[in-house]
Amino acid sequence: MMTATRLLHSPYRRVTNLPLTTLRSAAFATTAPAHGKGYAQYNPGDPLLLESLLTEEEIAIRDVAREYCQENLAPRILEGWRTEEYNHSILPEMGKLGLLGPTIRGYGCAGVSNVAYGLVAREIERVDSGYRSTASVQSSLVMHPIHEFGTDAQKEKYIPRLAKGEIVGCFGLTEPNHGSDPAGMETSAEEVDGGFILRGSKTWITNAPVADICIIWARCKWDGKIRGFILEKGLKGLETPAIKNKVALRASITGSIFMDSVKVSHDSLLPNGQGLGAPFSCLNSARYGISWGVMGALEDCVNKALAYALERKQFKRPLASFQLVQKKLVDAQTEIALGLQASLQVGRLKDGDKLAPEMVSMVKRNNCGKALRNARIVLDILGGNASSDEYHIGRHVANLQVVNTYEGTYDIHTLILGKALTGTQAFAN
Amino acid sequence: MMTATRLLHSPYRRVTNLPLTTLRSAAFATTAPAHGKGYAQYNPGDPLLLESLLTEEEIAIRDVAREYCQENLAPRILEGWRTEEYNHSILPEMGKLGLLGPTIRGYGCAGVSNVAYGLVAREIERVDSGYRSTASVQSSLVMHPIHEFGTDAQKEKYIPRLAKGEIVGCFGLTEPNHGSDPAGMETSAEEVDGGFILRGSKTWITNAPVADICIIWARCKWDGKIRGFILEKGLKGLETPAIKNKVALRASITGSIFMDSVKVSHDSLLPNGQGLGAPFSCLNSARYGISWGVMGALEDCVNKALAYALERKQFKRPLASFQLVQKKLVDAQTEIALGLQASLQVGRLKDGDKLAPEMVSMVKRNNCGKALRNARIVLDILGGNASSDEYHIGRHVANLQVVNTYEGTYDIHTLILGKALTGTQAFAN
Amino acid sequence: MMTATRLLHSPYRRVTNLPLTTLRSAAFATTAPAHGKGYAQYNPGDPLLLESLLTEEEIAIRDVAREYCQENLAPRILEGWRTEEYNHSILPEMGKLGLLGPTIRGYGCAGVSNVAYGLVAREIERVDSGYRSTASVQSSLVMHPIHEFGTDAQKEKYIPRLAKGEIVGCFGLTEPNHGSDPAGMETSAEEVDGGFILRGSKTWITNAPVADICIIWARCKWDGKIRGFILEKGLKGLETPAIKNKVALRASITGSIFMDSVKVSHDSLLPNGQGLGAPFSCLNSARYGISWGVMGALEDCVNKALAYALERKQFKRPLASFQLVQKKLVDAQTEIALGLQASLQVGRLKDGDKLAPEMVSMVKRNNCGKALRNARIVLDILGGNASSDEYHIGRHVANLQVVNTYEGTYDIHTLILGKALTGTQAFAN
Amino acid sequence: MMTATRLLHSPYRRVTNLPLTTLRSAAFATTAPAHGKGYAQYNPGDPLLLESLLTEEEIAIRDVAREYCQENLAPRILEGWRTEEYNHSILPEMGKLGLLGPTIRGYGCAGVSNVAYGLVAREIERVDSGYRSTASVQSSLVMHPIHEFGTDAQKEKYIPRLAKGEIVGCFGLTEPNHGSDPAGMETSAEEVDGGFILRGSKTWITNAPVADICIIWARCKWDGKIRGFILEKGLKGLETPAIKNKVALRASITGSIFMDSVKVSHDSLLPNGQGLGAPFSCLNSARYGISWGVMGALEDCVNKALAYALERKQFKRPLASFQLVQKKLVDAQTEIALGLQASLQVGRLKDGDKLAPEMVSMVKRNNCGKALRNARIVLDILGGNASSDEYHIGRHVANLQVVNTYEGTYDIHTLILGKALTGTQAFAN
Repeated sequence: MMTATRLLHSPYRRVTNLPLTTLRSAAFATTAPAHGKGYAQYNPGDPLLLESLLTEEEIAIRDVAREYCQENLAPRILEGWRTEEYNHSILPEMGKLGLLGPTIRGYGCAGVSNVAYGLVAREIERVDSGYRSTASVQSSLVMHPIHEFGTDAQKEKYIPRLAKGEIVGCFGLTEPNHGSDPAGMETSAEEVDGGFILRGSKTWITNAPVADICIIWARCKWDGKIRGFILEKGLKGLETPAIKNKVALRASITGSIFMDSVKVSHDSLLPNGQGLGAPFSCLNSARYGISWGVMGALEDCVNKALAYALERKQFKRPLASFQLVQKKLVDAQTEIALGLQASLQVGRLKDGDKLAPEMVSMVKRNNCGKALRNARIVLDILGGNASSDEYHIGRHVANLQVVNTYEGTYDIHTLILGKALTGTQAFAN
Repeated sequence: MMTATRLLHSPYRRVTNLPLTTLRSAAFATTAPAHGKGYAQYNPGDPLLLESLLTEEEIAIRDVAREYCQENLAPRILEGWRTEEYNHSILPEMGKLGLLGPTIRGYGCAGVSNVAYGLVAREIERVDSGYRSTASVQSSLVMHPIHEFGTDAQKEKYIPRLAKGEIVGCFGLTEPNHGSDPAGMETSAEEVDGGFILRGSKTWITNAPVADICIIWARCKWDGKIRGFILEKGLKGLETPAIKNKVALRASITGSIFMDSVKVSHDSLLPNGQGLGAPFSCLNSARYGISWGVMGALEDCVNKALAYALERKQFKRPLASFQLVQKKLVDAQTEIALGLQASLQVGRLKDGDKLAPEMVSMVKRNNCGKALRNARIVLDILGGNASSDEYHIGRHVANLQVVNTYEGTYDIHTLILGKALTGTQAFAN
Repeated sequence: MMTATRLLHSPYRRVTNLPLTTLRSAAFATTAPAHGKGYAQYNPGDPLLLESLLTEEEIAIRDVAREYCQENLAPRILEGWRTEEYNHSILPEMGKLGLLGPTIRGYGCAGVSNVAYGLVAREIERVDSGYRSTASVQSSLVMHPIHEFGTDAQKEKYIPRLAKGEIVGCFGLTEPNHGSDPAGMETSAEEVDGGFILRGSKTWITNAPVADICIIWARCKWDGKIRGFILEKGLKGLETPAIKNKVALRASITGSIFMDSVKVSHDSLLPNGQGLGAPFSCLNSARYGISWGVMGALEDCVNKALAYALERKQFKRPLASFQLVQKKLVDAQTEIALGLQASLQVGRLKDGDKLAPEMVSMVKRNNCGKALRNARIVLDILGGNASSDEYHIGRHVANLQVVNTYEGTYDIHTLILGKALTGTQAFAN
Repeated sequence: MMTATRLLHSPYRRVTNLPLTTLRSAAFATTAPAHGKGYAQYNPGDPLLLESLLTEEEIAIRDVAREYCQENLAPRILEGWRTEEYNHSILPEMGKLGLLGPTIRGYGCAGVSNVAYGLVAREIERVDSGYRSTASVQSSLVMHPIHEFGTDAQKEKYIPRLAKGEIVGCFGLTEPNHGSDPAGMETSAEEVDGGFILRGSKTWITNAPVADICIIWARCKWDGKIRGFILEKGLKGLETPAIKNKVALRASITGSIFMDSVKVSHDSLLPNGQGLGAPFSCLNSARYGISWGVMGALEDCVNKALAYALERKQFKRPLASFQLVQKKLVDAQTEIALGLQASLQVGRLKDGDKLAPEMVSMVKRNNCGKALRNARIVLDILGGNASSDEYHIGRHVANLQVVNTYEGTYDIHTLILGKALTGTQAFAN
């Protein structure tokens, strides 16, 4: 009751019920200086006119995603965060709108550009990085490897149902002792009569506890190479316990995968990819999406902090009129504008088959690092209200801390780029 | 079960069961280079030999506090954090050890130095900022104003019971619309037959929902001055609902105070302080303690990150051997060493009646800002394990974010110091 | 002689005599990992493939500029820096290649895109910010206002000669007491028989001491509006003394302009611009160019630091193999890639008449700030050799400090963007 | 003439002619808020009351040094910086006041505490890091090793004359290929009839071109150990050419030392120190002094920036009243206060024989890094005037860049501390 009372008087509550575009125009209504002929109107919500670089199709799918996320995800996030419970209806809803595996052609998928995929990630993560993680895993780490490395039968069996969100997938690469260094993988696959035996464990696996299928990467005993396997829920010896009491990404579910001599048939092997290049291809796709997603999270932080700063008064003036507050907002806004331009360019190159993995390292690292740093800074604008999860920025900050670390820590991407730049690896230095 | 399994193999679990000093010597065992004659042994756990500047009494009370905190608070913190439930036995336990209001002479208090008080805050916050907040409020914000501004009767009635932790107090200054700017206070006190009527509301009040007494600061209608009042639990019109779902300081309890024409007797007035100087005197005491406390929190982050980095291997080498990891740890360690020296000097000046409030602003601001920044940086060392509350650093980071903001935000202290330095105030700029 | 001896053994000297492309391939030769099908080769010298977004014409003029700058400017820079003497042959050389006022159509100008203009600025500043300042003033601050606000007669009289570098121009806006706040301008123009009388002084004016014409902005007494005037060298009462002993931009010449009742004819008025919008239009053009230029300076810092780190060994390994060194280089490289993408987008918008001045504030501020910060960081790679001007990075750092400040300080651009974002100005706060 | 005119109107010029204390009281005159009983007056020029921790003797020698530096060094610094010429009268002047080798007892030295030595370094570097370098070399790197490792005859021959500044010394450790890694030293000493032959070269040696004696560290062929030798000017085969065109420390003189089979007598050997511990002992002493010195340089930056900000108006208000300006000043002021407390503690430990070299690494690294970072930030307050060497802060910034790097780069000290903290060296990683 208290909380309700307090929020009733919160400027923030009043504005967040408006659709996003209205929020923006409320905030920016006063910013229409006429700079004279030859100048265009400046839009602080899109300072470098990203919009002008998107196709109509991309804008359309972005708007579908935005509407869904603001109307259907945003109202659920506090509950999801507080309870740490996985919401089984979200993936099906996303599937219905074509947001899962959207770059795949056929199999019931949308077949849109990688830029469109990035825009969707940005809209989901604008609400919560956990929801985006759930979707990223499904699209980039499950549908993608089946589509890329699977047989036709595997594709037809799994992709349409994954696209609809009827079944959930997870991706087992990271092991308890091998995070940044997957080449040390200990999980093994041994060929036996009628299939393979998998042994080992994976940890920090998004979606694992609710997954119908697990893509498991294992070192094959017969040739020492790493290959992917599709493990269906319920196999004997397969356990996927949840990891609870997370300090971040509480709206997505995370678990371990234990494989105690799990027997699978030959059909479970993804035959068309071998070596670490196969899972890395999945990670590249996911990391690319993250580079867009975190910008969405930071945008939400800026929008919420701005709305707060416009209504909150101290010393008889709105916080938004203080130099130290403006600096925080402008720093964040600038990094958003730059990060989105960079991700757009990487997306265009990906669409044009000109992608190099290091480009993904660059935008994943930069955008995560900048999102985290700036989300933390604008959080300070809330003052004591930063403590309340109802102001949301603190949740983004906690999430971004982890997103900055998963799918390649910040430092690992530094060293990937450092190796490419100097010709010398320093991972083990 | 899963979690237990995972932790069984965690290097961190193994070491944290050891007492703190053993942890240190385990970590530092290899660092005993002989630099030749004329040099002393370097102790990375106390790089600038703070210990050599403490009195025996100060060391003794510090050790009592440390033992209590490590043995009695540390084992409870995860539960406290996860449930957001106030633990009623903690203040009495602290009271028993003399840790509440320790600088007060008489009334059952320890009568130790302000440096000793800081050392206690550091030990409590080494476990959790929430526990330290609970204790700070009791000591600096409740016992201190009664001792400083109360009548003999008030002192005798309340201080001994507060010192034992038999009753709990809270401090009502901040209002929904007046955080950094308490001069705008709207809560009022009106003199009536037989006492006063208080009206208004306070928010973000540590301990409020469990408080037996509330120190309420109100603007007195008869002369426009601000004075303090002691309100006992159960008064008609007084409500202290809890604010739940906090993203930080979850081991302490926070609430609002609503006063709907609360009638109190004349005895409730603290007669010996008027104007904002009175509550500011309390804040100065609390902020001084915070400057020590946050250093303790950061020390815990460094110790835990170091233990992790020593055992966790990637690329076949311990993380602790990587340059990028060493830099994170060293930066944090340096700020701890410097921040403690500064707080010590402020404590000595306070003990010698040479304190100026700006000194407190300097160490509160610096130490909180540095603790927050560096805790975030060492958190990255955990990689994906940062998500788990069992690794503790994420919890410290969330706490420090709020501690950096309460009792004067970072920016407000900047401007307090800026005013003193330039002679011009810029609060409302 | 000593210096020669030392440099003979410097790894850096050996590589800088190679053309730039060779330098790159030497540094990057080892970085050709095959990431498998579907991936392109990564080029650390152009991580996000800016090249793929340029037209052939833009590439061509960029290459002309690069060749000229590396072959003709680079060898002169140490002399220029050490002596602080203006080199009169440089503007004519640039004019010959079409590098002055290149976006103007007609009047002997190249008529290329604003992106091409940016690419030229980048190539010049890759050598030195002082040379780029000289050229920027001529193009954006002298040719531009005459073209934009001048009469046909003024255009025909001045632009062709300015384009050839036959005459030199300067731009008088900043006054001793009015830097960030030009609205406070004190220089006045009074209409008298046969023309105008100008009175006042300007300071920190690039090119002033060698200028054949000065574009002077003055407040017109008859209506209080600001207008531009063309003052030719030699007018009575006009003095343009040099400011010597600069700590930066020593290869360009800077001075003051003193106007002690300078009488000019009516022909000297630029009739088609009035108000601060007119000089701001010039500044927008110049600031846009700066946003490209500083990225060139930082690129040079990275290239030189990389070459040094590849050859310099400590502890028997090249510096380039150390994590702390790789991080410095990668941070800088990332900011270059992002900054160039942002400036490209602003250039395309400018070419398409969709520019808003705030966009220029964003890229000027961001790129200058990032160039300065990262140039300082890579400078550290040189160790003690940073002291020597022969390693060049220290010179770039000194220059960038000033470039970050002129044409709108970093903070002023923060507040311009803050005003647009919040709808509230905080300049005078 | 121009410059004179401009400066005549500069607020800064007016105040710098006042003695330092007057400058302070001018700046701080308005900052005397009465905080009520129990509080002391705050002194923004000494926020944590360092003064209260000094002995009378320390204050006395500090005041002598301050008066000398402000009255005799400050007026000469622009000339020294611009011409790069060594001023032969400065060391004798310092000698006369007892500022050289002041911690040595006997031999005509002052025999004061290490804290006093630090205070002197701070006063000299308040004027210029180059002057402080000259003095540091004489005291810590020449007088110290002779006193510590020399024979009685050597001490009596050299120390009194060095103390008076009659002769100048230099310290040859760094080699062209061995900066951070002196263990790779290539300079050799071979024993021959009647003495030793030294071969090799040293670089970046402060004072070398004007040195009457060079302390040369060489690897002795007979046992592979490193020892020090005193080489007098004029020996056959010894050359000490100057390195000119430095971008920093231009008021001190720097050179190389070339030893082409230089023959010295047996008397030249410093017999009582062998191994790298001997030169490291000198470096520890010098680095300790630097930790004080750089705080002095930053203090000067803050004082000058504050004076400027108080008089310079933009938007009709003094810069000092802007939030963004106050933040810059307060950040710097805080680091000064903390850095000085830390150096004081290290000095007290050194005086009490409780020093560990890592403590020196901590304060050298921290104070240099903070001085550099904050000097750069306050430099921005000058706006365009930052370009002029007459505003001094740019000179300090250039100097501090080098001071941060010499006598152990920032990164090397990170790794020294990292090794002590983790027990694992990462120098070669």
